[in-house]
Amino acid sequence: MHDIAALDERDPLAPLRARFHLPEGVIYLDGNSLGPLPVAVADRVQSVVSKEWGESLIKGWNDHDWIGLPQRVGNKIGRLIGAPAGSVVAADSTSLNLVKVLSAALGLRADRKVILSDTGNFPTDLYMAQGLAGALEQDHELRLVAPDEVTSAIDESVAVLMLTEVDYRTGRKHDMKALTKKAHEVGALTIWDLAHSAGALPVDLTATQADFAIGCGYKYLNGGPGAPAFVYVRADHLNNFAPSLSGWMGHAEPFAFDLTYRPAEGIDRMLVGTPTILSMSVLDTALDIWDGISMTQVREKSLRLADIFIEEVQSRCAGHGLELLTPQEPDQRGSQVSFSCPEGYAVMQALIADGIIGDFRAPDIIRFGFTPLYLRYADSVEAAKGLERVLTERRWDKPEFLKRAKVT
Amino acid sequence: MHDIAALDERDPLAPLRARFHLPEGVIYLDGNSLGPLPVAVADRVQSVVSKEWGESLIKGWNDHDWIGLPQRVGNKIGRLIGAPAGSVVAADSTSLNLVKVLSAALGLRADRKVILSDTGNFPTDLYMAQGLAGALEQDHELRLVAPDEVTSAIDESVAVLMLTEVDYRTGRKHDMKALTKKAHEVGALTIWDLAHSAGALPVDLTATQADFAIGCGYKYLNGGPGAPAFVYVRADHLNNFAPSLSGWMGHAEPFAFDLTYRPAEGIDRMLVGTPTILSMSVLDTALDIWDGISMTQVREKSLRLADIFIEEVQSRCAGHGLELLTPQEPDQRGSQVSFSCPEGYAVMQALIADGIIGDFRAPDIIRFGFTPLYLRYADSVEAAKGLERVLTERRWDKPEFLKRAKVT
Repeated sequence: MHDIAALDERDPLAPLRARFHLPEGVIYLDGNSLGPLPVAVADRVQSVVSKEWGESLIKGWNDHDWIGLPQRVGNKIGRLIGAPAGSVVAADSTSLNLVKVLSAALGLRADRKVILSDTGNFPTDLYMAQGLAGALEQDHELRLVAPDEVTSAIDESVAVLMLTEVDYRTGRKHDMKALTKKAHEVGALTIWDLAHSAGALPVDLTATQADFAIGCGYKYLNGGPGAPAFVYVRADHLNNFAPSLSGWMGHAEPFAFDLTYRPAEGIDRMLVGTPTILSMSVLDTALDIWDGISMTQVREKSLRLADIFIEEVQSRCAGHGLELLTPQEPDQRGSQVSFSCPEGYAVMQALIADGIIGDFRAPDIIRFGFTPLYLRYADSVEAAKGLERVLTERRWDKPEFLKRAKVT
Repeated sequence: MHDIAALDERDPLAPLRARFHLPEGVIYLDGNSLGPLPVAVADRVQSVVSKEWGESLIKGWNDHDWIGLPQRVGNKIGRLIGAPAGSVVAADSTSLNLVKVLSAALGLRADRKVILSDTGNFPTDLYMAQGLAGALEQDHELRLVAPDEVTSAIDESVAVLMLTEVDYRTGRKHDMKALTKKAHEVGALTIWDLAHSAGALPVDLTATQADFAIGCGYKYLNGGPGAPAFVYVRADHLNNFAPSLSGWMGHAEPFAFDLTYRPAEGIDRMLVGTPTILSMSVLDTALDIWDGISMTQVREKSLRLADIFIEEVQSRCAGHGLELLTPQEPDQRGSQVSFSCPEGYAVMQALIADGIIGDFRAPDIIRFGFTPLYLRYADSVEAAKGLERVLTERRWDKPEFLKRAKVT
């Protein structure tokens, strides 16, 4: 057994917990869905609202450099994913950023018609690709294979390999570097969705030579519900395509009010409409927590938090029909642990009622995110104990429980 | 001359001014670019951050019905533009909403290839149309005519008439009803950008039978910098097109995580990614100010505020080369007044330095927005006096002025 208290005591990341607001009595294992509130956000928001907007009014665009926020926030995210300054902007939603880079990639590989993805991709990415292919009417094919068949499905028909690095249900992680390499060998471009990677594990877009990447601001980056997403374009592609979502903020001279679109140089062309300053300021403040943090340390702790949880669950909950869906090999998983679980929905409701917050994904998956910035090793043990208690008590067999726990 | 004090005393909208934070010593005539801070926003934001996000965490989506915000906010906007409940959602940016409705409209009129617009449209609408047409590669033509040539340019080649009702530079207002009628007579669909209309003047989408409309949350609706925009689709079109921006929030069952997109019934299909809860909550609170307000009263006061300003400027500033660009006929203008003005940039800088905030649009336009919720008739007079003073003093001839006023 581990000496949990000693692990927590020696944990170099432990002081970061104080930078988050975590409700009393809650063990929060859903930071892979919505990160908790950074303490510094309340002041920042009040300042943006009352001081910047309230006092500067329209002058805020210059006086507080609102106009530069997408780039400033983008650069902060870039540092977490191995992207050079000037290659990432924060903007819009992950879904919209997907269609920006997919249309760019399809334009760059106009001779090919296959978008290769897998059934473990987050559905909105697939939906956006379907919508784009439908609109283009150029006989594009969205080819879906099982996650473990991706490597063998990469061939010279593929225009774009479009994958989410870490599977939102199982936590299975693709080998971004190897898959990107194979895609490039057959002349395909790559789009990586880093929704469950950015802030969760080391990503090095420069080293992997990924062509495009997108990701989410409200999971491991703790930017708040519906925070702006981000988009990355590799430097050598940046000026080689005309954005199909060509809004004024991506124009070379937005305030010249020309009648004709001319894309801005570089990553700015991925911007479309007016940036949402309030939400983006929150993400900006949330990202300051990462200053000086080593992603290697984050990863080490994340794996250990998850390993302890898996061990504890396996020893405590045997016989309840749980099946681990997350690969145990460190290089094949992200920062979450998923089990298939009979009556998983009710089990998760009971856990949440006890203050242990994970989530449920159909048909029977209970999902736990391990986020090293604010979790303690003791939380892994307590969560496993809680799961054991819930599985043993079977409170959902009692009708008053179900009545109470209808939502979530 | 008007009895300004009496007008202000009798003004039924006067009490609304107290619902906004307006900095000391400022006359704010740029609410057509960015509305000022509603007083109630500070509390709402603090509550969304600290209570909803901070305490409810992921449960906020249900406990605080974040998931229903785009529709709730959409319905509040709908009441200001004559749109029935369930026909408007708040989402994304105006630019992105333009491309959603334009791709829908082009799909519904696939036999025609002309998008008719005018040179007074806000450039981002034109840019988005250019980007979409370029991506579709179906030989669409964006046909631009002068604003006063639109009527005669509506013919049977036109798939979509795409206009902004009120010109962002001149304040000239199109006749939405007549143009929509003419478009329908030749079998064209209509898209109206209400960026300078919603909250500025009475709009009745139902009566005009407009097919699609979009608009901005941060101008006359006071939703804060980069607030979510809105999108309207006429009921009979709603289920006749598949969205090209087909994200999970527009899916019939977002949380079923199907691999295939199926559009939601009704206006929900105009949603794409996760709604940005913080910014949308601010807009939600800002919209409460409109409860029980008559748009007829708003319009009456807006016209009178503008008329007084025009009269005062014309009598005070004669000989300084100002030329009124805004039509004086009430049914041909929106809620702003624009002059062409030699050295307009410097003039506006000097005005702003004196606390009279309008804005400048290239090449030589000084622009003043008249927003009846928080302006007083006395402000119209004081602003004209300020302009007179600035034009007389010519402070910009002194080098230390220019140095100080470089930005904005």
